Amino acid sequence: MPAPPIADRLSRLRAAMAAQGTDLVALGPGPNMHWVAGFHPHADERPCLLLVTRDKAGFLMPALNAAGSREQTDLPFWTWTDAEGPDAALQQALADLGATTARRVDVDEAMRSDFALLLLDALPQAGHGFARDTLGELRLCKDAAEQDELRRNAAISDEAMSAIFAALRPGMTEEEVATVARDVFRNHGAEPLFTIVGAAANGAFPHHHTGDTVLRTGDVIVLDIGARKGAFSSDITRMACLGEPPPDYGRVHAVVEAAVEAALAACRPGVPASTLDRAARRVIEDAGFGPQFVHRLGHGMGLEGHEPPWISEASGTILRPGMVFSIEPGIYIEGRFGLRLEEIVILHEEGPEILSRLPRDLHVVPV
Amino acid sequence: MPAPPIADRLSRLRAAMAAQGTDLVALGPGPNMHWVAGFHPHADERPCLLLVTRDKAGFLMPALNAAGSREQTDLPFWTWTDAEGPDAALQQALADLGATTARRVDVDEAMRSDFALLLLDALPQAGHGFARDTLGELRLCKDAAEQDELRRNAAISDEAMSAIFAALRPGMTEEEVATVARDVFRNHGAEPLFTIVGAAANGAFPHHHTGDTVLRTGDVIVLDIGARKGAFSSDITRMACLGEPPPDYGRVHAVVEAAVEAALAACRPGVPASTLDRAARRVIEDAGFGPQFVHRLGHGMGLEGHEPPWISEASGTILRPGMVFSIEPGIYIEGRFGLRLEEIVILHEEGPEILSRLPRDLHVVPV
Repeated sequence: MPAPPIADRLSRLRAAMAAQGTDLVALGPGPNMHWVAGFHPHADERPCLLLVTRDKAGFLMPALNAAGSREQTDLPFWTWTDAEGPDAALQQALADLGATTARRVDVDEAMRSDFALLLLDALPQAGHGFARDTLGELRLCKDAAEQDELRRNAAISDEAMSAIFAALRPGMTEEEVATVARDVFRNHGAEPLFTIVGAAANGAFPHHHTGDTVLRTGDVIVLDIGARKGAFSSDITRMACLGEPPPDYGRVHAVVEAAVEAALAACRPGVPASTLDRAARRVIEDAGFGPQFVHRLGHGMGLEGHEPPWISEASGTILRPGMVFSIEPGIYIEGRFGLRLEEIVILHEEGPEILSRLPRDLHVVPV
Repeated sequence: MPAPPIADRLSRLRAAMAAQGTDLVALGPGPNMHWVAGFHPHADERPCLLLVTRDKAGFLMPALNAAGSREQTDLPFWTWTDAEGPDAALQQALADLGATTARRVDVDEAMRSDFALLLLDALPQAGHGFARDTLGELRLCKDAAEQDELRRNAAISDEAMSAIFAALRPGMTEEEVATVARDVFRNHGAEPLFTIVGAAANGAFPHHHTGDTVLRTGDVIVLDIGARKGAFSSDITRMACLGEPPPDYGRVHAVVEAAVEAALAACRPGVPASTLDRAARRVIEDAGFGPQFVHRLGHGMGLEGHEPPWISEASGTILRPGMVFSIEPGIYIEGRFGLRLEEIVILHEEGPEILSRLPRDLHVVPV
């Protein structure tokens, strides 16, 4: 992956800060720091912050990560050792950056709370917002290089899903099924992020913890897998069954498929994200399963597996070209099975591009 | 692993809260929540908090995780859906828990900053501390069952390190070496947490990012690996060399070994943690390598790979039986090599128990 254009990204961030009235943005080691600086140091309990003002920027840096990080960036460091602690280095950083009188500080919403409170306690006059209000807006739309990374990752998750389909048989445990996908990801140099395998009643928990449950003939199985390669994620959900599904399964699958199609049909630039959620939810409600669709329709994806834009009834986002997000309606029937179908799409002027090449049909394993 | 005794842990936490003057403790999905409740729901961007007052407790719970979590706990939930957002459920939770007038709130230092600020913004009259001040104290000493888990995990990391020793040869990349360890961990059902392989000059960065560097004859290699099995971690660092090390290597290794032994000799209940750091650091300083020992001597280990007690000059901790921590002095010679030796010990009345069975000698690979 080519290095992101740091100067350009700092300048876009500062324009967003000016528009929001933000004096200081503070980012922890993670996706936000990576987006701005093109890297982030090892993340642990040692406070590490990228501090960005309207005209300066630099890192509060644990001493033991300074030499390694110096190879990655030209920005100044204020280092601190384990013996010193971070307080004096932070004070010096804020003074040198001219940030001691900041009135509004946007903190990285995903960083450790003690990193954020270390900074906010040092600036008692400042109010706080979140990086999602400034940087988050910039991360919403992916450029051409980022879109290519996401397409490549989707091809790998398609291969992992196909490998599961080929391996599935009664007597395997959920965990053994997950291992099939993880092996494919790792063979491609991708780090598995989640491998949800929810057999029969387990599938009715959207975030089921894949375990020792043994697959049996007649089980329908939720398969929701994703991995990170380079800095970017993948995510896909499909359904499989060992032999014939329960008699009522087909109707429920058709409802969820219709919900996906309704959302895709509504998906174009200028439309509120909430409209997609509403379009899919109405299909499911009209079929009588409204209470069994217990989550939002989707989430953005990029440097993080879940990131804005949120595709929910509560979302205020208006869709724009370059946004990348999931469409993943589900119906969860307690004690019996869950059913979810998930696509990742890139929104273009002319509509959504679905990254997966796999059909959304139930994959029936002959037994 | 048997379920931890929840009622006992809540009662010990409340005693610590009373001693600290803490009215409310708020924990996110992670090790702190796991320690108290014996589980934690899926962690994502949806605010999820275990709220504990002096006489009540319950969860702010994203609706889609409620059914799965209900199988794990009898504590009450205040649930919220993606469409509603968490604000109203949090207000209701604080009212029902009698926490709206809390004066001091201890937030989970490791949870997302937006979880902590959601709560603190809802309690503008409250000051904040951190869970490390109350719960952290309780997690410092491991009970017999926890110690057994840590011994079992150490045996696995010994096996992974031995597998690396057996596999090492010139021409391998750092990443290929790391894969050897990860395969051993996974075969034991352990999830790799870190596999630092730092060849030659790369080893001079304590948190070197394992990469494509090819190992060559004469390289000394830092090997620092750990994994999680069940809820607990492992961590070990050893040194290897492909053929003969540089002529001055042996002296530096002897200094680090002497520093480990000085710390072990000082290690007994009632001694300040800072004394161990000082004992090891003095050995290294006296040998002329003080500036090259750029980090603290060690860190606690348990549900997290790094947790209190911190074994540093700045630590105020007095060592007690049941504490589990690393002793890992290092000397980092820029542009040439790094050298670190790490033991995990359980402190008993009679002194430290070293978990690894592997010698700390340089492992020389014949080439």
